[in-house]
Amino acid sequence: MTYRAPVADIAFALQVAGLDRNIAEGLHGELSDDLVKAVLEEAGRFASEELAPGNHQGDVTGSRLSDGRVITPEGWPDLYRRWCEAGWNGVMAPEEIGGQGLPVALWAATSEMWASANMAFSLAPMLTQGAIEALHVHGSETLKRLYLEKIVSGEWTGTMNLTEPQAGSDLAALRTRAKRAGDGSYRITGQKIFITFGEHDLAGNIIHMVLARLPDAPQGTRGISLFLVPKILVNEDGSLGAANDLRCHSIEHKMGIHGSPTCTMVYGDHGGATGFLVGEENKGLACMFTMMNNARLGVGLQGVAIAEAARQKALRYAHERTQGRLPSDPDMVPIVSHPDVKHMLMAMRAWTAAARAICYRTATALDRAHLAGSEAERRTAQELANLLTPVAKAFSTDIGTEVASLGVQVHGGMGFIEETGAAQFYRDARIAQIYEGTNGIQAIDLVGRKLPQSGGRCVRDFIDSLKASVDEIRAANAPGFGRAGERLDAAVTALGTATEWMLAAERMDEERLVGATAYLRLFGLAAGGCALGQGALAAGRGEGGGAAHLAIARFFAEHLAVGAAGLAVAITNGAAAVTGAGADAALTDI
Amino acid sequence: MTYRAPVADIAFALQVAGLDRNIAEGLHGELSDDLVKAVLEEAGRFASEELAPGNHQGDVTGSRLSDGRVITPEGWPDLYRRWCEAGWNGVMAPEEIGGQGLPVALWAATSEMWASANMAFSLAPMLTQGAIEALHVHGSETLKRLYLEKIVSGEWTGTMNLTEPQAGSDLAALRTRAKRAGDGSYRITGQKIFITFGEHDLAGNIIHMVLARLPDAPQGTRGISLFLVPKILVNEDGSLGAANDLRCHSIEHKMGIHGSPTCTMVYGDHGGATGFLVGEENKGLACMFTMMNNARLGVGLQGVAIAEAARQKALRYAHERTQGRLPSDPDMVPIVSHPDVKHMLMAMRAWTAAARAICYRTATALDRAHLAGSEAERRTAQELANLLTPVAKAFSTDIGTEVASLGVQVHGGMGFIEETGAAQFYRDARIAQIYEGTNGIQAIDLVGRKLPQSGGRCVRDFIDSLKASVDEIRAANAPGFGRAGERLDAAVTALGTATEWMLAAERMDEERLVGATAYLRLFGLAAGGCALGQGALAAGRGEGGGAAHLAIARFFAEHLAVGAAGLAVAITNGAAAVTGAGADAALTDI
Repeated sequence: MTYRAPVADIAFALQVAGLDRNIAEGLHGELSDDLVKAVLEEAGRFASEELAPGNHQGDVTGSRLSDGRVITPEGWPDLYRRWCEAGWNGVMAPEEIGGQGLPVALWAATSEMWASANMAFSLAPMLTQGAIEALHVHGSETLKRLYLEKIVSGEWTGTMNLTEPQAGSDLAALRTRAKRAGDGSYRITGQKIFITFGEHDLAGNIIHMVLARLPDAPQGTRGISLFLVPKILVNEDGSLGAANDLRCHSIEHKMGIHGSPTCTMVYGDHGGATGFLVGEENKGLACMFTMMNNARLGVGLQGVAIAEAARQKALRYAHERTQGRLPSDPDMVPIVSHPDVKHMLMAMRAWTAAARAICYRTATALDRAHLAGSEAERRTAQELANLLTPVAKAFSTDIGTEVASLGVQVHGGMGFIEETGAAQFYRDARIAQIYEGTNGIQAIDLVGRKLPQSGGRCVRDFIDSLKASVDEIRAANAPGFGRAGERLDAAVTALGTATEWMLAAERMDEERLVGATAYLRLFGLAAGGCALGQGALAAGRGEGGGAAHLAIARFFAEHLAVGAAGLAVAITNGAAAVTGAGADAALTDI
Repeated sequence: MTYRAPVADIAFALQVAGLDRNIAEGLHGELSDDLVKAVLEEAGRFASEELAPGNHQGDVTGSRLSDGRVITPEGWPDLYRRWCEAGWNGVMAPEEIGGQGLPVALWAATSEMWASANMAFSLAPMLTQGAIEALHVHGSETLKRLYLEKIVSGEWTGTMNLTEPQAGSDLAALRTRAKRAGDGSYRITGQKIFITFGEHDLAGNIIHMVLARLPDAPQGTRGISLFLVPKILVNEDGSLGAANDLRCHSIEHKMGIHGSPTCTMVYGDHGGATGFLVGEENKGLACMFTMMNNARLGVGLQGVAIAEAARQKALRYAHERTQGRLPSDPDMVPIVSHPDVKHMLMAMRAWTAAARAICYRTATALDRAHLAGSEAERRTAQELANLLTPVAKAFSTDIGTEVASLGVQVHGGMGFIEETGAAQFYRDARIAQIYEGTNGIQAIDLVGRKLPQSGGRCVRDFIDSLKASVDEIRAANAPGFGRAGERLDAAVTALGTATEWMLAAERMDEERLVGATAYLRLFGLAAGGCALGQGALAAGRGEGGGAAHLAIARFFAEHLAVGAAGLAVAITNGAAAVTGAGADAALTDI
C-alpha cells in the first residue's frame, strides 16, 4: 500500500471548513451529505487503487521525448482515459458545459487525492482546469462551442503558456508575438518554456492557452493578450483538421515529477501558429488571472497531498521498523515508540492537517463567492478567498517540502534510497514552492495586494474570527487541550501586531517586503492553529473526527504555533538588517 | 565557476573560533599564521579548480557496479591520486605516522572545502580518516606497521562497517560473526549495508573496519569487537597478497551523492574473511567511538560545505538574473535587488556562517583536548568538544538542507532543473542529516549524555560564556548591531531556561527526549548567534572579516535567533502533547 486516501480526515476537514454550512444554506442545490461522502469514497478508491500504484514507476521511467512526441509512463494513457470516463475531470465545471457542477470544495478534496497518489499525473488535469475556466469566462461562443465540452470531458487537455526565458515572475517582459491574420484568427510566433504537459500522448488534442503580444500593443503587462492555440486545428464541425504550426522542442531534466513532461514549446516555425483570441485584445492578464485563480489553490493542495502521502509512508514504516529499546522493555520496539520519532510523526500530521484546513477554507470561501445569496456576501467571501489563496499556496507547499523531509528522516538510511519512495516525495514536493508564482511572489501578493483589500477590513475581520476561535478554545477548557488556548492566543496576537504593522500608512514598501515571507508563515501558523482548534472543538461535540483531532490541535499549538511571536518580532523590527548597507556588503562579496 | 573556496571567511572563522589563541599558546609548535594561510589558500585552490569542476558530472554518471567492481566517475582515480600526493589525506595525522600533524581545526577547514567542491568524492577520505584514528589509537604494533602509513598517505582507503539490515541506530542488534582462527587472526562472516566506498577503483587496497560478534560474546553492545579486514590480504613484508573472502554485492540507488558508492558488503562466502582484532575482544564499541569521533564533526562540516556551495551559486545567479522592477527604476533589475530575495540570501549566509562557527569551535576544542598544557585544561576542552559535537553534526546538517532548499528557491524554475546544479545540493545535503547517527540520535546524545557531563558544569560554563558574549555585544552598542544584543540575550536566556529544565533531577527521560531535537536547534541558535556576534566584534576591532560580518551577525540575531524563545516554550511545556494517549490515537490511525 503506497497511499490510502484519508477519506474520514478529508470529510471532517471539509465540514470544519464550512462545506456543511454551505450545503445547509442551499448553495449547492440538492447536494447531500451522502453524495459528498460517495464522491470522496469513490475518488479515494480511484486514487489509492488506480493512481498510486504507478507513482514510483512513473518517477523511474519519466516522460520522454522521441521525434517531437512525448511518451508518458507506461499505462498512463489508459489510466487517464478511465479517470476521465469516471467524470473526474469536470468535477467542478458547471453542468451546462458537461461538468458535474460540484463545489470547489469537492474539487479541492479530490485534487488533493490525485496529487497524493500521483502528483506528476495529476498535473495534466490541473492545467486543463485553468483552460476550462479561462475559456468558460472569457471565450467567445464559437470557441466555447468548438472546444469547451471536449476539454471538460478530458478528451482534450489544456495548458498554460506563460513563461519565456526572460519572463518568469515578470510577465511584462514577454516577447511571444501575435499578429492579426485578417480572418479573425491570429498567427503566433515565439518560444515558451516550462510548459507542463505541453506535449503528451494522453489525449487527442492539446489546447494551449498562450500569452502573446500584438504588434501595436502597449508595453508591459497592459499589452498582453491571451490566445487559444490548438495542437491540431479543429474544423467547424468539431472534427480534427491539420496540425498547427507548433512543436515541443525539448523537455526538461528535472529533480522530480518525472512523469510530467515540462516542455519548451516553439510556435511559428512556418509563419505562425493559428491562434484565437480569448477575451479582448490587450486584456490577457485578466484572463490569465482567471486561469491561474484556482491553480494557486491547486498547487497548495499539492503541498497538502505530498505531505499526506509522505506522512502515511513514514507512519507505516515507523510501525514496522523495530530498532532500539525502551527502559521498560528488553526487546527492540517499533520506532514509533521513541519520543523523538513520535515528535516527527506528530509534526507531520499537524502540519498536514493545518495546511489542509487552510486550503479547504479557501475553497469553501470560493464557493460562497460564487453562490452566496447576496452580492455583499459574495463580495466578502471573494475577498476572504483572495486573502487566503496566497497562504494556501505558499504555506501548504512550504510544509509539503518540510513534511516530506521529515518523512525521509523517519526512514533513516532507507529514506535516502530511491526504492523506498520517501525520497520521491521530497523531490516532487520541491517544485510546488516554485511554480504558479514562487512562494516569495505569494508573500508579496499577500502583503502588497491582499491585506489592503477594503482598507484592511477583510484581514481584520479574519483575525477577529481567529480571536473568537481562541476564546472558544479557552472557554472549552478541556484538559486535553493542554495550553493550546494560551499558545494560539499568543499566535493570533502576534499576527494582529504584524498585520497592523504591515497596514500602517507610514510603512515603506521595502520594509513590508522584507518581512513578507515571514508574515505569510505567521499567518499560516495562526490560521492553521485556530482551524485545528475548531476541528478539535467539533470533534469534542461529537461531530466527527475522533480523539486524534484534539491531540493534533494541541500538538500544533504547543510545538509549532509557538514560533509565531518570534516571527512577529522579525517582521516588525527586521527591515534594516536586510535593506542596510551592511547587507549589501554581505551580498556582494561572494 | 561552480565554487570558489571562501578562504578569507574560513580564515576569519578559524581565528574567531580560537585557532589563533591555540597557536599563540604554543599548542601547535611552529605553526605560523602564514602557514595556516598557505594551507588554506592551497586547499582552496585544489577544491575550487580541481575538485569542483567534476561535481556535476559525478552526479550524472554516478559510481556503478560491474562484475563486482565499482567504477567511480571518470577522472576520479587520477584526481584522488593527485589529491593524496599533495598530502591532503594526512592533514591532521601525526607526523610520526606520515601525516602533516596539523590542527584538527585545519582538517575541519579543508574538509569543508573538499565537501563544498565535491561532497561525494570527499567521502572516501572522510571514512579513511576514521580508520586511521581507530588504528592509531587501538591497533597492535603489527597492524600499525603493516597498514597505517599506507592509509595515512591515501594509497589505501578505509571504511567503517557498522550497519546491518536489522541494526542501524541500534548496534546491539548486529549479527556479523567473527571466530578465532587459531593463528591470532579471525574469520568474519556476515552482511553489512550502507558501506560508503566499500568498493571502488581509487586505491590499491581497501581496509574495512568491521564490527562483529565473537561466538562467546555477551549480548548487546558489550559483545561487539572491531576487526580490520583488508580487501586484499597484506603479506608480512607489506606487499599485497591474495584477495580476501569478501565482496561488494550491490550498490544503492540513492537520491544524492551519486559519485559515492554505497555498498552492501558480504563477508565470508567461502568460510570467512580474514580479519584482525583492533583493540580488545568485546571492546569494539569504544574503538568505534574513536573511529566515529571526528566523523560526526566531519559530517557537520558537510552541512556547512553544501550550504556554502549552494549560497555561492544562488548569490551568483541572483546577480546575473534580471527580473522585475523597482519603483525607482523602469528597467528590470538583478533579482538580488528584491527585498525577498535579499532576505533569502542573507539567511543563507547567516545560517552557513553560524554552522561554520560551531563546527570550527568544536575543532579548536578538540585541539585543546589533545594538546593543552594541563590535564585539567585538556579535560575541560574535551568536555566542551563532547558537548558541541552533536550540535555541530545535527544543527549544521539541518541548515545544510535548509540553505540548499533556499538556493533552489532563489533560482526559481531553474532551481528544479538538474543542469543548474542547485538541485544537486538539495539532494546531496539530505543524507548528512541521516548518516553517522541520525540527527535525532544526536539530539538524544546531547540531552542524555552531554548535558549531564560533570553534573552540568560543562554546559553551564558554556552558557556563561555565551552570556559574556551578549554582554560584550550590548556594551559595544554599535549602531550596526541594531537589536542584535537584545535578541541574543533572549536566545541565551531561552537556552538557559531549557537547559535547567533538562538537567532538573525530577525530569523523566521521556519528557527530555520529546524536546531533544528542539533543544539542539535552540542550542545552535544561541551558540551560533553569539559566535557571529563575536565575529562582528572582532571585525569591528579591525581584526579582519570586514563590514559584512556585522551585517551577518545582526541578521542572524534579528531574523533567525528570534525563534529561540518559542523553542524553549515547546521544550519545557510540550511533553504531554507527544506522550499522551491522544498522540497515540493520532499515530495509530493511518
